[in-house]
Amino acid sequence: MSKPVLELIRSEVRSLQEYHVAAPPSRIKLNQNESSVELPNEVREEILDRLRAMPWSRYPQTQAKLTTALRDALELPDGTELLVGNGSNELIQALLVAVLEPGVNIVIPEPTFLLYQQFAAILGASVIKVPLDPDLTCNGDRILEAVEAENARVVVLARPNNPTGICMPIAAIDRLLGRTNALVVIDEAYAEFADDTVLGLLSEHDNLIVLRTFSKAMRSAGLRIGYLMASACLTNQVAKVVPPFNTGVVSLEIAQVIIERRELLQPGIDATLAQRTWLMSALEPLPGITPIPSQANFICFHTEMQPRRVFERLLDAGILVRDVSGYPLLGDCLRVSVGTAEENREFVTELNRILGEQ
Amino acid sequence: MSKPVLELIRSEVRSLQEYHVAAPPSRIKLNQNESSVELPNEVREEILDRLRAMPWSRYPQTQAKLTTALRDALELPDGTELLVGNGSNELIQALLVAVLEPGVNIVIPEPTFLLYQQFAAILGASVIKVPLDPDLTCNGDRILEAVEAENARVVVLARPNNPTGICMPIAAIDRLLGRTNALVVIDEAYAEFADDTVLGLLSEHDNLIVLRTFSKAMRSAGLRIGYLMASACLTNQVAKVVPPFNTGVVSLEIAQVIIERRELLQPGIDATLAQRTWLMSALEPLPGITPIPSQANFICFHTEMQPRRVFERLLDAGILVRDVSGYPLLGDCLRVSVGTAEENREFVTELNRILGEQ
Repeated sequence: MSKPVLELIRSEVRSLQEYHVAAPPSRIKLNQNESSVELPNEVREEILDRLRAMPWSRYPQTQAKLTTALRDALELPDGTELLVGNGSNELIQALLVAVLEPGVNIVIPEPTFLLYQQFAAILGASVIKVPLDPDLTCNGDRILEAVEAENARVVVLARPNNPTGICMPIAAIDRLLGRTNALVVIDEAYAEFADDTVLGLLSEHDNLIVLRTFSKAMRSAGLRIGYLMASACLTNQVAKVVPPFNTGVVSLEIAQVIIERRELLQPGIDATLAQRTWLMSALEPLPGITPIPSQANFICFHTEMQPRRVFERLLDAGILVRDVSGYPLLGDCLRVSVGTAEENREFVTELNRILGEQ
Repeated sequence: MSKPVLELIRSEVRSLQEYHVAAPPSRIKLNQNESSVELPNEVREEILDRLRAMPWSRYPQTQAKLTTALRDALELPDGTELLVGNGSNELIQALLVAVLEPGVNIVIPEPTFLLYQQFAAILGASVIKVPLDPDLTCNGDRILEAVEAENARVVVLARPNNPTGICMPIAAIDRLLGRTNALVVIDEAYAEFADDTVLGLLSEHDNLIVLRTFSKAMRSAGLRIGYLMASACLTNQVAKVVPPFNTGVVSLEIAQVIIERRELLQPGIDATLAQRTWLMSALEPLPGITPIPSQANFICFHTEMQPRRVFERLLDAGILVRDVSGYPLLGDCLRVSVGTAEENREFVTELNRILGEQ
């Protein structure tokens, strides 16, 4: 057993910290921007009925039925193709495998969702981080400068950004797309909660790739379904990297029913938006708390009390939020998912109590 | 729209043919070694009951319950860890991402399952192909010579091999493992149909990685569930490459029920083995047909009549088999999955009729 098997693993992988996903148990879970509400029973029952009637023993032959339904639901322009994956994570990883290699650069803003840089690091690419402006907005001109200076091949932007909840203006993204030949990946994981979407830009820019997920507004984080939209010349290439039969018949059918019955999910989105408004107005008057206006289903807020201490006191009360104070520019911040009315009330009450203890 | 976006894609990906998975419609489908029989209704209903009772809106937090059940079911040695993926495809791809890069070599026998070289090519690794011996067995000494001559970092062997159905002897694999420091990946997709397994070698060799799937004997090709077994020092590294939350709660729960109720699947495996014996004895006397004894749920057979012609005449009769005549050493071969008794009888009757038309 003395063989150095670990030395067979590339150093980029060996030196990487595993992305940490374990969460402490909690009564009220507001740390991962999941839906606190399940799919409507009517939708779940229709899914179970369809699963009962389907064969499971045969390989899935095509994603075409689902991609057609998604195309229609989103009114995608002609020429835009879709790929469905086991979460959008699988698809962005495949895209980065298709593009990156050692010596190739990727530009991301900082702070943003951590996985982009993790995937890029695995591939040995150089990650160029462009800090957000002091007001936490993403500056398109600085992104473009970095792309040009570093001759980057790809930019990844989350819109709304995570963990800030702020959207880069569509006009700024349009301008960036028009001025660079690099691929621009827009992760719209939270788009259903935002005022607008970049989907309309797909017909104008063949260097645009948009990612979406069923994990947030579609209430299905446990099901691992995401999709990628781009011109066919790009989706055809990414499809080569994704393993054949990547998505199973169960995932495809579940997504199909959710899309067909999506009007039943709209009240949940509306309720989340109303709760986000309530949560903002409830956080604003709290002493030492400054919430950041969000277009996602979470709110990032500054706290004058030490964030780790607030996090731990909330957890003592059974409420789990996300400590984002380790991110650049967010040293005094926590992030809380918008939960149900009751969860949000309890969170605000508890936070207020903790602040009063100082 | 004149931007050269395709040039942003790595040449290794651009130059690759997409792995072709579309199959023509057929009445009797014997081309992908799926189970012709669904899971027992009792198992399917238990799965649906459990799915009904579960939340779907939360990220899956751990694979531990399923990996513990698998460990117990397979009586794995202490020190062996498991990773569950969306099909074993996802896991071998992640493993190869962890190990390969341009300038690093991988050894595979030829012919074998095509995806290994596809994944390696995407990563820019050099694929060293070692031809099977003329009797279609895999020669461990020649594999070892290639590994040493090319300083390869990884060997991938399917056992039983696909598309031949032949198993490399355990002793030869044991010997190979002991004489090389390279990783040796054994794809046991069809192990439940074979006389023996390499799992017992896991406790002796920390350069051994074993892959299994729910797609064949577990009758669940549509569900996309596979798993990888190796020492913790390797699974920890592969886990970094697999996206977090790769497997959904539905997949994990389905696999859990199948493993818990696996005794209900054994009669199906026994029936397939009996049908394989019947199919061998039915093919042997056919004029110009020489079947290769198989340890999998398929039979590869030589045909003196042009294989493409036989394939097409079978398809005319609604029977889809796999034309493997494009593989080296198999220029006169087709491969047929072992189906139900009725499917196999009809296949043999039709094949006999086609041969008589010559």
